[in-house]
Amino acid sequence: MGGDHGPSVVIPALSIAARRMGPSVRFLVHGDEAKIAPELARCPALKSIVEVRHTEKAVAMDEKPAQAMRRGKGSSVWNAVECVKSGEAVAAVSAGNTGALMAISMLILRLAAEVNRPALTASWPTAGGITTVLDVGANVSADAEQLVEFAIMGAAFHHALHGGGRPTVGLLNVGSEEQKGHEEVREAHALLRATDFEFDYHGFVEGDDIAKGTVNVVVTDGFTGNILLKTAEGVVRFIASELRGALKSSPLNMMGALLATGGLKSLRIKLDPGAVNGAPLLGLNGIVIKSHGSADAASYAAAVVVAAELARSDFAAEIDRSIKRLSAALAQPAATMESGN
Amino acid sequence: MGGDHGPSVVIPALSIAARRMGPSVRFLVHGDEAKIAPELARCPALKSIVEVRHTEKAVAMDEKPAQAMRRGKGSSVWNAVECVKSGEAVAAVSAGNTGALMAISMLILRLAAEVNRPALTASWPTAGGITTVLDVGANVSADAEQLVEFAIMGAAFHHALHGGGRPTVGLLNVGSEEQKGHEEVREAHALLRATDFEFDYHGFVEGDDIAKGTVNVVVTDGFTGNILLKTAEGVVRFIASELRGALKSSPLNMMGALLATGGLKSLRIKLDPGAVNGAPLLGLNGIVIKSHGSADAASYAAAVVVAAELARSDFAAEIDRSIKRLSAALAQPAATMESGN
Repeated sequence: MGGDHGPSVVIPALSIAARRMGPSVRFLVHGDEAKIAPELARCPALKSIVEVRHTEKAVAMDEKPAQAMRRGKGSSVWNAVECVKSGEAVAAVSAGNTGALMAISMLILRLAAEVNRPALTASWPTAGGITTVLDVGANVSADAEQLVEFAIMGAAFHHALHGGGRPTVGLLNVGSEEQKGHEEVREAHALLRATDFEFDYHGFVEGDDIAKGTVNVVVTDGFTGNILLKTAEGVVRFIASELRGALKSSPLNMMGALLATGGLKSLRIKLDPGAVNGAPLLGLNGIVIKSHGSADAASYAAAVVVAAELARSDFAAEIDRSIKRLSAALAQPAATMESGN
Repeated sequence: MGGDHGPSVVIPALSIAARRMGPSVRFLVHGDEAKIAPELARCPALKSIVEVRHTEKAVAMDEKPAQAMRRGKGSSVWNAVECVKSGEAVAAVSAGNTGALMAISMLILRLAAEVNRPALTASWPTAGGITTVLDVGANVSADAEQLVEFAIMGAAFHHALHGGGRPTVGLLNVGSEEQKGHEEVREAHALLRATDFEFDYHGFVEGDDIAKGTVNVVVTDGFTGNILLKTAEGVVRFIASELRGALKSSPLNMMGALLATGGLKSLRIKLDPGAVNGAPLLGLNGIVIKSHGSADAASYAAAVVVAAELARSDFAAEIDRSIKRLSAALAQPAATMESGN
């Protein structure tokens, strides 16, 4: 029951999510019953589908991941992830401390078979709809094999959530030519070209291809991905604030005020790479979704729906099939692997 | 005489630059005299201060850097850089092929004493004015020592161009705590903390600190820097286009049209990290400035003024002093170096 707002956001969010997800859904809510009960009392429709699992223990927003792993047992986030492991829940959603959620999830759920590293995923609003970008911060580096794993997991996630045909996948680089970039991306490029996965590999993409929506899935290492996501969020905020200022200072004040309150805010929500809520931590034996700490009820509900849709899809099986093809490709002699280049 | 527009932009740009830089300035213009002469004829004020160095040879925009190095001798960009080496010019400005300009400049001017890698620099409009970001693409990776070199060069450039007191410098990372990030950034952080340079080291900064203007100079490797700059440019273009669409489709059509043509364009120029023209390639024995290929006359003039201001400053001496301190710090036993941590 983390995040900036706790039960006052999560409970109303479950009402919204329940309406969208139909009658079969049920929720386990982990946290302080004394704080949850009054919120629940205001949502009678939730009575039969929400079960509260009481704990007063919570991981603080500023707690270090290592600390959370050592001391987190019995906390709300720990218990939520435990329920995924035990099969009581199909997915866990948390708006709490991201590092702690990742560390506890890794510890309890472990990596899926043959996956080397988890990846945190962002859903980025672009000219082509939503583009899935990963890794945005589960790791600080990635070798070629791990980049290919991210491509596999990102494509399966995108397909599960957005449907359509085979997703297109691009590998982020400083140019689109074969010889560009460092060894890791060039090797990953060769592997992606040479192996048949359940997505269409587009090749290298550059930074501006993200907003253009050139591909459905953009793959990069967690260092670059985290920095570019936060950079873009910062740019969107800066532009919104400058626009507000420019419009307010113009003689067309009324229009300025209108935009500043309504239009600009909705536009920012539409454009901010940080605003589409529900970021899965991919690569584990179970579904774990990070919600923004500052999410409101509608936004938290979106993260819950992402969790449910993933749980209903066969994305884990799709990842498993592709990872096996990757392992087979890596087991072949290098000359064979690179012949498709 | 590269770029998308050639002499029809460069010559009017020199008129603008000459007015801003005063009577002592003189220009050598390298390119096809037959194309330059008619443009010059329209700018009589330039007659006494421009000398044309004729060459019909030009490096194409899509030529590979290695190709340009082998075949570029005698081309306009080659001759421009040669004049910096010979001392005939204090700086070279080009709107042509970026990779070719970097390769030819490295080949002719060579790296400054004790500098290991050059760095390409971007001037990023932020809430705090202009933030200098480097490396944005001269290299695909950087070790700790090279990151510190970028900090030194970026601080000297920022100080030369924007004045003020000691610039503040931040190292881009995925979090602000000491233990965050990969080895290279943590080592560079320790070196920057422990050594006394001619700037104030702020510590780690995150992606959103760029637009906030938290520091004057943001240091990162060329892979991350190139990708985040292009990502941000793409986001700004996407927002401008969405805003235009949103305003045009509103009942307040006139306001929309106004913003779309005038206001939005000027706002985009103000906010686009790619729009502040004049990106130096730092670390060489001489000043080389890259202008955008699509620059108009006013924008190309801005790049020429950057070249002149750098030439008048003592930024090269400042870099030299700081690089010597870095070498001294690196020569000390590791225990001493890290004691400042």
